[in-house]
Amino acid sequence: MDPEGEATVRDIGEFGLIAALRAALPPVTVAGAGLEIGIGDDAAVWRPAAGEALVVTTDSLVEGVHFRRDWTDWASLGHKTLAVNLSDLAAMGARPRLAVLTLALRGDERVADLVALYEGLGALAARSGTLIAGGDIVTSPMALTFHVTAIGESRQGGILTRAGARPGDVVAVSGTLGAAAAGLRLLTEGGSGPRAGAATAAALIAAHRRPEPRLGLGTILSERGATAAMDLSDGLLGDLPKILVASGVAARLDAAAIPVAAAVRALFPEEWLTLATRGGEDYELLFTAPPAAFATIGAEAAGIGATVTAIGEIVAASAGRPALTMRGLDGREEPVAGGAFDHFRPGASMDDEGGE
Amino acid sequence: MDPEGEATVRDIGEFGLIAALRAALPPVTVAGAGLEIGIGDDAAVWRPAAGEALVVTTDSLVEGVHFRRDWTDWASLGHKTLAVNLSDLAAMGARPRLAVLTLALRGDERVADLVALYEGLGALAARSGTLIAGGDIVTSPMALTFHVTAIGESRQGGILTRAGARPGDVVAVSGTLGAAAAGLRLLTEGGSGPRAGAATAAALIAAHRRPEPRLGLGTILSERGATAAMDLSDGLLGDLPKILVASGVAARLDAAAIPVAAAVRALFPEEWLTLATRGGEDYELLFTAPPAAFATIGAEAAGIGATVTAIGEIVAASAGRPALTMRGLDGREEPVAGGAFDHFRPGASMDDEGGE
Repeated sequence: MDPEGEATVRDIGEFGLIAALRAALPPVTVAGAGLEIGIGDDAAVWRPAAGEALVVTTDSLVEGVHFRRDWTDWASLGHKTLAVNLSDLAAMGARPRLAVLTLALRGDERVADLVALYEGLGALAARSGTLIAGGDIVTSPMALTFHVTAIGESRQGGILTRAGARPGDVVAVSGTLGAAAAGLRLLTEGGSGPRAGAATAAALIAAHRRPEPRLGLGTILSERGATAAMDLSDGLLGDLPKILVASGVAARLDAAAIPVAAAVRALFPEEWLTLATRGGEDYELLFTAPPAAFATIGAEAAGIGATVTAIGEIVAASAGRPALTMRGLDGREEPVAGGAFDHFRPGASMDDEGGE
Repeated sequence: MDPEGEATVRDIGEFGLIAALRAALPPVTVAGAGLEIGIGDDAAVWRPAAGEALVVTTDSLVEGVHFRRDWTDWASLGHKTLAVNLSDLAAMGARPRLAVLTLALRGDERVADLVALYEGLGALAARSGTLIAGGDIVTSPMALTFHVTAIGESRQGGILTRAGARPGDVVAVSGTLGAAAAGLRLLTEGGSGPRAGAATAAALIAAHRRPEPRLGLGTILSERGATAAMDLSDGLLGDLPKILVASGVAARLDAAAIPVAAAVRALFPEEWLTLATRGGEDYELLFTAPPAAFATIGAEAAGIGATVTAIGEIVAASAGRPALTMRGLDGREEPVAGGAFDHFRPGASMDDEGGE
C-alpha cells in the first residue's frame, strides 16, 4: 500500500481505505469524551451528560452541485463537509460532540486525496471538540458525495430556534456577508481574474472554501437572550423569511447597515449588495434579540474576537403589509421578494409554496 | 399541487416536496417521545432518558449499487432504507429512538413515488418506535441516494459489540439465511422465472425487498448474556470473521446446521449453501453466547415468534490453524476463506488487508 502516492481507492480496497482514513484522524481520548465504542463496530456508542438536550443535524455535499474538485482542495473540502454541519449546531446554541461521516466514492479517487480530506475534517473536529465516531463508505459510481450527521449538546432552556423573534427585537448578523459568494464568483471567472489582487482574491476564495462555524458566538447567543437564530446558507434574503414565518412576525432591514468586506465592495462595485443579501454560503449567524440583550451579546462577542452588526428590526406582522422591507442605499424603503433558492426550481421562490 | 398524480419534484419544488413528505409520515406525540423540536428548524432536538447510552449508526442506499428501481417498489425502498439502519441498532441491543433522512434526488422523481417511499419508511418507523426527526433534501443529478442516520438507546452494560466472543460459546443465527440472495437472484433472472411458483418467488423477493430488523431479539440478546453480535449484511462467511478478529478467537461451523428455507433449497439445489453463507443482505442477527445463555435466549426468542439456531462454536485462536473452519455437507472439516465483499475490489477479500 502506498497511501501517500498515486494509489486509488480501487487499488487498496474498502478495508485498506478505512485503515488509512482512521489513521488520518486526530487521536481522541475516548473515555474522557463519553465515547464508549468508536469506529469499527455496527454503531458508535456514546453516553451524554445527564440533563443535556441533544441536537441532531445532517448535511451533504454532492460533487457538481455543492462543490467542484477543480475549485477546491481536498483538505478544504473535508473542512467544509464538517463545517456546514457544525454551523447548524452553532445556530441552535449547541456544543458539538460527535459526528458520523459517509463517503460515497467512485473508486478512482486517490487515497492521498482522501487522507487530505480527513486531515482537513479532523483538524476542525479536534479544534471544535467533535469526535468522528464512525461512518460508512459506499460505492457511488456517478458522483462523489460526502454526508455528515452531527450531534451536539445544549443545556435545558438553551436551545435557539427560528420561532422566538418578537416585535422590537434587533435583527443582526455575525461577521461580514458576501465574501463566500464573491469568492465563488472569482472561481467561476477562473481564479483571481483580472480584477483582484492575489491576496484579496485568496481571502475571498478561502471564505468560500473554508467557512468557519460560529460556535463560540452560538453559545453566547443562547446564554445571553437571543430570541431566534439560524445560520446563513441560502443568503440573508432567502433565510430571514424562515425566521419571520416561524416566528409570525415581519422585519425591516437597512441595506446601508449590512456589513460587507471592503474587498467585496471594491471588486464588485455593481453587485456587492446582491452578493451580500442573496449570495449564500456565508455560514454567519443571523439572529434576533431585544436591544439590551443585543448590547450584551456584542460586548461578549468582542471578547472572543467575533463581531455582530444590527441590520434591522423585527416588527409586528400585519395583513396588508409585506413581511420584509429593506431601506435601500437610496434611502427608499421597498418590499423585498423573499424566498430561498430552490435547487429543483431555480426560478421559483419559497413564497410560491407558502413557506418551508 | 397534485401529489397523487404525475407531478415531479421539479414541478412542485423543494419546499412543496417537504410539505408533501411531512404529511406522509405517521403523526408522533412529540413531547411524550422526548423530541422537542422536529422537522423544520436547523436541527432536531431531543432529550434522552438519564443514564442511557446512545447508539449511532448510519447507512446509505445508492441507486444502481444497492437498489434498482425496476427491482423494487417505492414503499419497499422506504422500508429498507430505515430497516438496514435499525438492523445495526438491533445488533447492538439498542432500542431505536430517532432517525434523520437525507434524500439526494435528481428532480425527475414523481412526488407520488416519494410519498410512497415515506409511507413505507413511516410504517416501519411507527412500528419500531423510531421518530423521523428531520433530514435534508439535496440535488444529486446522477443517482438517487437515500441516507439515514439512526440513534438508539441502550441501558448501561447492555451494549452488544463484536468483541466479546469466548471459546466454548455457541455461534448462532436468527431466522433463515439465503432467502434475500435467492430473491435477488430471481429478480436478476427476470421476475419469478421458470423455476419458481409465484407464491414462493414472491416470498423470496420480499425477503430481499423488505428485510425485518430483529429488534426484539436484539433486546433479548443484550439482556440474556449474548457475548457478541452483529447483523448479517455481507453474508455469514463475510461477517463472522469480523467477530473473530474483534474478539481474538476462532470458530468452527457446521454447514448442515445452517438454517435455510426449504424454498431456497428447492429452487437452488446446487447453490443454496453458497446463497446462505455468502449471499448477503439477510439482516438476521449473528451472535455468540455460552451454551446456558443460548438456551435461555432460544426460549425467550420463541416467546416473540423469533427463532435462533446454533451453527457452530467459538474455539481458541491458535497460530498454525485457520481462524474459521466449516464441516461441509460431506462431513469433512475444511478451512474457510473468509472475507467480506469489497465493493471497490470485487475479487479481493478482507484477509488481504488484515481485517477491518
